[in-house]
Amino acid sequence: MRKVIYGGACSLDGYFAARDGAIDWLHFSKDAQQIMARQWATADTILFGRKTFEVAAAQGGGGGMKGVSAYVMSRTLTKPPARGVEVVSTDAGEFVRALKSKPGKDILVMSGGDLASSLLRAGVVDEIGFNIHPVLLGAGVPALRDSGGRIKLELIESRPLDGGCVLVIYRVN
Amino acid sequence: MRKVIYGGACSLDGYFAARDGAIDWLHFSKDAQQIMARQWATADTILFGRKTFEVAAAQGGGGGMKGVSAYVMSRTLTKPPARGVEVVSTDAGEFVRALKSKPGKDILVMSGGDLASSLLRAGVVDEIGFNIHPVLLGAGVPALRDSGGRIKLELIESRPLDGGCVLVIYRVN
Repeated sequence: MRKVIYGGACSLDGYFAARDGAIDWLHFSKDAQQIMARQWATADTILFGRKTFEVAAAQGGGGGMKGVSAYVMSRTLTKPPARGVEVVSTDAGEFVRALKSKPGKDILVMSGGDLASSLLRAGVVDEIGFNIHPVLLGAGVPALRDSGGRIKLELIESRPLDGGCVLVIYRVN
Repeated sequence: MRKVIYGGACSLDGYFAARDGAIDWLHFSKDAQQIMARQWATADTILFGRKTFEVAAAQGGGGGMKGVSAYVMSRTLTKPPARGVEVVSTDAGEFVRALKSKPGKDILVMSGGDLASSLLRAGVVDEIGFNIHPVLLGAGVPALRDSGGRIKLELIESRPLDGGCVLVIYRVN
């Protein structure tokens, strides 16, 4: 079955972005590129949190990509924010469960901890991966929120990356 | 100069203990033992946060150890909670700075994120290390709190440990 994959580049204290949204601490390297390329090679669907979508759109991303189904989870958007992007306002867990039951490749979740915790709570996330950067931000957009209980993980891969980063990938289910 | 080292075994979402204080998810292995032995080999001082001390004491630890100076940072304790343990109620950052200027071996900080963030803010922490366990706790005793600003780290060591754990050690100063 297609996997639902959540994660991204975060600080050691678990933030995707600083308090002011700053991501200037991100280290782009060949290592990071290869990890992203490997992930995209097995995916055909992207599920955005609304705020993450807006950040991506502001940076010129977030639009429809050829061969990729894009969804934005939002209770406030009334129309698609970009061509080729579908708005989903129903329960995130149920939507993703239905999506997983359809044929297709992996589903990448690009969001902050709010959407991720909903999906973890719903038990539909199969893999979590972080590229832990060597910085403490103190506050900001958390990569993980309280999912309401203990969730056991299984380490699939871990290795140091260029720039003092550390890759960790876990199986959830 | 002697180093101030902070860290411990935490969940992927950065907790030292679950909401109810549970640490039954901790994986004790030869790897973990070796890391602790290596750390103790270069240390002669231990600085407890008050709550961490009480947890350690309740588990039969926390007392004076031969050849080890033990301090408990506390604004509420009026007398030493155990033999060979000194209560420190002055500013944590200043106390540690003074301690570092004296001859001695490394200083291990055993506390939650509150004391650690004070020490990080004061700029007296030299090394941070975590043994990241393959579990999400959702809530509990945070290993890191907001230290008021961005703190750059330098990765010294990272490797997978037994039981799906991952060791990460960083230089702070």
